[in-house]
Amino acid sequence: MVELPEFDRHTALEALGEGRYLAVLDGGWHVGGGLNGGYQLALAGAAMSAELAASGKPDPLAVSASYLAAAVDGPGELVVRVVRDGGRTAVVTCDLVQDGVTRLTALATYGDLARDADDVRTTAEPLVLPPREECIGSEFAPAEFRASVPLIDRFEMLYPAEFAGCFVGAPSRQGALAAWFRLKEGREPDPISLLLAVDALPPVTFDLGIPGWAPTVQLTAHVRARPASGWLRLVHRTRNIAGGMFEEDCEVWDERDRLVAQGRQLALLPR
Amino acid sequence: MVELPEFDRHTALEALGEGRYLAVLDGGWHVGGGLNGGYQLALAGAAMSAELAASGKPDPLAVSASYLAAAVDGPGELVVRVVRDGGRTAVVTCDLVQDGVTRLTALATYGDLARDADDVRTTAEPLVLPPREECIGSEFAPAEFRASVPLIDRFEMLYPAEFAGCFVGAPSRQGALAAWFRLKEGREPDPISLLLAVDALPPVTFDLGIPGWAPTVQLTAHVRARPASGWLRLVHRTRNIAGGMFEEDCEVWDERDRLVAQGRQLALLPR
Repeated sequence: MVELPEFDRHTALEALGEGRYLAVLDGGWHVGGGLNGGYQLALAGAAMSAELAASGKPDPLAVSASYLAAAVDGPGELVVRVVRDGGRTAVVTCDLVQDGVTRLTALATYGDLARDADDVRTTAEPLVLPPREECIGSEFAPAEFRASVPLIDRFEMLYPAEFAGCFVGAPSRQGALAAWFRLKEGREPDPISLLLAVDALPPVTFDLGIPGWAPTVQLTAHVRARPASGWLRLVHRTRNIAGGMFEEDCEVWDERDRLVAQGRQLALLPR
Repeated sequence: MVELPEFDRHTALEALGEGRYLAVLDGGWHVGGGLNGGYQLALAGAAMSAELAASGKPDPLAVSASYLAAAVDGPGELVVRVVRDGGRTAVVTCDLVQDGVTRLTALATYGDLARDADDVRTTAEPLVLPPREECIGSEFAPAEFRASVPLIDRFEMLYPAEFAGCFVGAPSRQGALAAWFRLKEGREPDPISLLLAVDALPPVTFDLGIPGWAPTVQLTAHVRARPASGWLRLVHRTRNIAGGMFEEDCEVWDERDRLVAQGRQLALLPR
């Protein structure tokens, strides 16, 4: 029997009925003060997708999440409530609950990305990165850093040299961070894994010479198309640091040069 | 006795206790198939602000809303639930209910924008618009259009000539729309009115030669600072039209050249 790729094993759900799903959160997604926000979003996204599959709306179109308490490794329950299901889209909420404490609450719109899939009039310029063989993998990170951030071993991330500098005290100070991204074991991207992708890069504040954990206050992801197989390109940018917070805009491009997902989060500056 | 400005009268709330607030929605905010989404968001924002005032977190920091059914003029109840209140921020939800039907559901983070108000490291370039005396007011719109869109008489909106063209069949096709904005009767902007401002411009698709109503699927607003008194400058941009939907990014700049709010919505292309 072929073992599923790690991402599938770590986001596997057991349906408990009445919109409830059991997951076992894996400690390998630890970063900063808890498990990665994108991993939690993908878990919630998978639960909402499972609940809406029967009505032909398996794909997240827009997902907004508030992070209430750090998620930990071990069992967690995803509680899905369909608020409205009619026409092209459904509106749905999902809470991730562990030990009676809600860790994440999400409000989302689901639909079917196969519909109107050929209608593309994107004016955004595709993200250009140097060829992968000229980029620098996460294995360059100091061993101490890698030990404290197991997240970086969950996927392949290849940084252009200009952005890799921020990990060794030489940030580009552009307010940007970009990389090639691929899940391990040849796991191809899909709409649910894009919810992880929009929060997979380190905080863009690294590139401004402000290292440290930047807790997400609120994250919204738009999934715009089913991604082609192969590598993704990710970029985070910020333009407005004010009041102890910054916005972080994410673009996810696929190998067909389509802007397949956009993310925006409001995060707290590291202290 | 001095009468309050129209915006205050139209967003006045009567507290009913236990997180419930009664509003009377005014038909003057009608546009397309229902009342303007920004007006509804401001009502929800005001109710959440009222509920959180006592805990020192009166300001919306991030508000995400799903529009479930068209809102109509007349009474409506805003039902607020505080999900978590602790530390610097609170997470809260709000439903707008009319005649037993939920019209809007919102998930928000509230805090105090007076805190860290002097911390500003914005790299975004302030929006430059021609002087107001060179811009074109909404009164240029054809009488038939104005009669069908009472919304445009709720505030002053002054368009640069390059963007006004889209209302008379000569869109700039930049995928952008910008204007000066001010509430009537000298009503100064505040964090709640910024929730209206992020959805006050017509759909950016007008500028692409695609007129018509563009229903909002999901809208997220970030309020980044308390705005200075005076005029605001608004801009909408889109870069990714795909799958029958487009994203619309909004910036709101105040007279002190601060980027006081950012909005992002996913909307359906007019059919």
